[in-house]
Amino acid sequence: MQTLPGFRDFPPDSCAARNYIFARWCEVARRYGFVEWEGPVLEPTELYKKKSGVEIVDQLFHFKDKGEREVAMRPELTPTLARVVAAHEREFKKPLKWFSIGQFFRYEKQQRGRLREHFQLNCDIIGEADLAGDVELVALCIDVLRAFGFSEKDFVIRISDREFWTDFFREKNVPPDRWDELLQVIDKSGREPRERTAEKLGDLADLVFATLKSGGKSKKLDKLVAGLRERGLADFVSIDVGIVRGLAYYTGIVFELFDRAGKFRAIAGGGRYDNLISLLSDGAVSLPALGFAMGDVVLGELINETSHAHEAMEKAIANDHEIDIYIVIAKEERRADALRHIQQLRDRGYRVDYPLTPTKVARQFQTAEELGARVALLFGDEWPQVKLKNMATAQQELVPQDRVLAHLQAQVSLSS
Amino acid sequence: MQTLPGFRDFPPDSCAARNYIFARWCEVARRYGFVEWEGPVLEPTELYKKKSGVEIVDQLFHFKDKGEREVAMRPELTPTLARVVAAHEREFKKPLKWFSIGQFFRYEKQQRGRLREHFQLNCDIIGEADLAGDVELVALCIDVLRAFGFSEKDFVIRISDREFWTDFFREKNVPPDRWDELLQVIDKSGREPRERTAEKLGDLADLVFATLKSGGKSKKLDKLVAGLRERGLADFVSIDVGIVRGLAYYTGIVFELFDRAGKFRAIAGGGRYDNLISLLSDGAVSLPALGFAMGDVVLGELINETSHAHEAMEKAIANDHEIDIYIVIAKEERRADALRHIQQLRDRGYRVDYPLTPTKVARQFQTAEELGARVALLFGDEWPQVKLKNMATAQQELVPQDRVLAHLQAQVSLSS
Repeated sequence: MQTLPGFRDFPPDSCAARNYIFARWCEVARRYGFVEWEGPVLEPTELYKKKSGVEIVDQLFHFKDKGEREVAMRPELTPTLARVVAAHEREFKKPLKWFSIGQFFRYEKQQRGRLREHFQLNCDIIGEADLAGDVELVALCIDVLRAFGFSEKDFVIRISDREFWTDFFREKNVPPDRWDELLQVIDKSGREPRERTAEKLGDLADLVFATLKSGGKSKKLDKLVAGLRERGLADFVSIDVGIVRGLAYYTGIVFELFDRAGKFRAIAGGGRYDNLISLLSDGAVSLPALGFAMGDVVLGELINETSHAHEAMEKAIANDHEIDIYIVIAKEERRADALRHIQQLRDRGYRVDYPLTPTKVARQFQTAEELGARVALLFGDEWPQVKLKNMATAQQELVPQDRVLAHLQAQVSLSS
Repeated sequence: MQTLPGFRDFPPDSCAARNYIFARWCEVARRYGFVEWEGPVLEPTELYKKKSGVEIVDQLFHFKDKGEREVAMRPELTPTLARVVAAHEREFKKPLKWFSIGQFFRYEKQQRGRLREHFQLNCDIIGEADLAGDVELVALCIDVLRAFGFSEKDFVIRISDREFWTDFFREKNVPPDRWDELLQVIDKSGREPRERTAEKLGDLADLVFATLKSGGKSKKLDKLVAGLRERGLADFVSIDVGIVRGLAYYTGIVFELFDRAGKFRAIAGGGRYDNLISLLSDGAVSLPALGFAMGDVVLGELINETSHAHEAMEKAIANDHEIDIYIVIAKEERRADALRHIQQLRDRGYRVDYPLTPTKVARQFQTAEELGARVALLFGDEWPQVKLKNMATAQQELVPQDRVLAHLQAQVSLSS
């Protein structure tokens, strides 16, 4: 019995690494005043069929359930967000600042940095049309990476604007019904042969290539960078109108986060989707919105390849498994006394472990060390005194059994 | 667009309630020295077909994926655990003490306390045959409930032993190939008419009914209760051999946790499954094991109906949304200065929010209050001084702008 291709098991070390990423995500989102929410992992397939590009639907894990409903394991969160916001928006003051950490699924060809499931941080601001919202969102995305120890030398956010291109098309008299198709072509232009892109662009090819090469000029994008400069974050971004994002629902600023070395796929991406909530609620609720998603897989690869970021994670993994106190039972006659103390210590919040069955004392101390215990308490011949050993200094002292709790509370602070 | 029947959205309040439950689960499991792990939510259907009773397979969300694999959204964690342990057991010292918090899926008729998805805490001890493992596990299950403020007046764990019944069958010369079927009948006996059970039990009916009525006698169960008594936890359990658990793979002690008032379905259940790992690894790895699972839905209902437990949760929900500092921008000329401070404060770990666009000062203070800010910092006419308002006492003071950080670090501790 194997895991399905593209799916992961998380034994304790992998789970601690995952939790380390989740904790940073959560912590930084909260610093920005975002509150957490979550949606279902199974949704009506229609939710994705109607709102996203065809590309996504081909990649769904979708099926007919026992009630003959067409359902899909979610490939992304934004359509769910639009639905939940449309249903609940009156309960909240605008703008909403919401984040979510959850798992997403795509049936794709497996390749480096792309599995069939991954976890994503999603951060969205709903009900704010002003560019100040875009600045706040991009700043948050930058600070999430900074929380892992990354600097402007490690990553960059490439910022673009769909309106730059729609203005461009309008100016060149391209009919609006071709815009979406052309945006997809520009989106793919970095990943396919120039001739093929040129063919698809037709008359526009030379102009588009020249614009991509020059980087494009846009007052809105300059203003966005200026907003980040006020926060000291301008060095983390660069303007690149070649970024378009595949999803059809983006309407304004779009951005993608890459490692500077260019070794990995995009680590995060997002943008403005001002029409989606109205579209999904059939016009009942209309709110401007913007958001980004960041996956755990590529981020994890970047952490693993960046020594200072990797060290911080390894330390967190070690902490995750550590206990506070190991109880050494040197005499089986003292087991009942030891268990009473174990219960009291755990009641106080300490992480406590002990041998479930009779075990040699040397082996028990070895386990205490392996589990990262800061203190070992030995129940044996010294009873009614308990031998307390500081595992770091190897210092030992005898403590009367009814003083153990008070003694430890003065000495051993709780694991976080 | 609606959620699928039996699936939940988690807007911020619901998500905070869910997180409150997760945090207690995680905290108590760690106190017991358990480490966290996780498996995939999608698995080969075969994993469940082979190992569980037929009852479960009928209730799966299962389908054929685009690669023609029969796959299922997991209905439970134990088969995955057996697979992961069989693959990784050599990396760990026995016994393993592992816990996991994740989502599970069953296509079932909807009823109170039973949706089509729910979250579960799973705690398992692997590699320990001694009854001491059973005591440790039941104690953990008790302490998880205690962490929500519940006492022995609120809930009880009914403890039983499959071996009690297999010994009974052996004594009555019932052929072993009928044991599983009879255990299922006993399991259902509390939920169906006595005549129906009697019919299925045949000759054994009178004896079984008498045993169920008397509660049964078992040295092993008495010893388990004695082990809990050593920890002061005996009042939380009662022996009840009517508890059998539906799943076919249990081999020894089994237990279920109920509210004392008997209003709800079982809140948790578990037991020993000493043969499952061997079965799933085709005999490659053989390890005794035991575990329990606790769902979030029934537990949530019990919390909501128990005033002191509900109060604690409400407080946690309020804390979840609270920020530390609200920045009031009284003069737009000061926005850039304010943003510089916002960035510095967030870098220090404070939760900070501010108006994205020009807003009346009174409205900003109102937002500060609504967001639970402990301090408001006003950037306005007083510049280069900043007005600091303690939101609880309404006391105000002027602080030079370059002293704001130090001043706050002395006054405002970080949100947890």
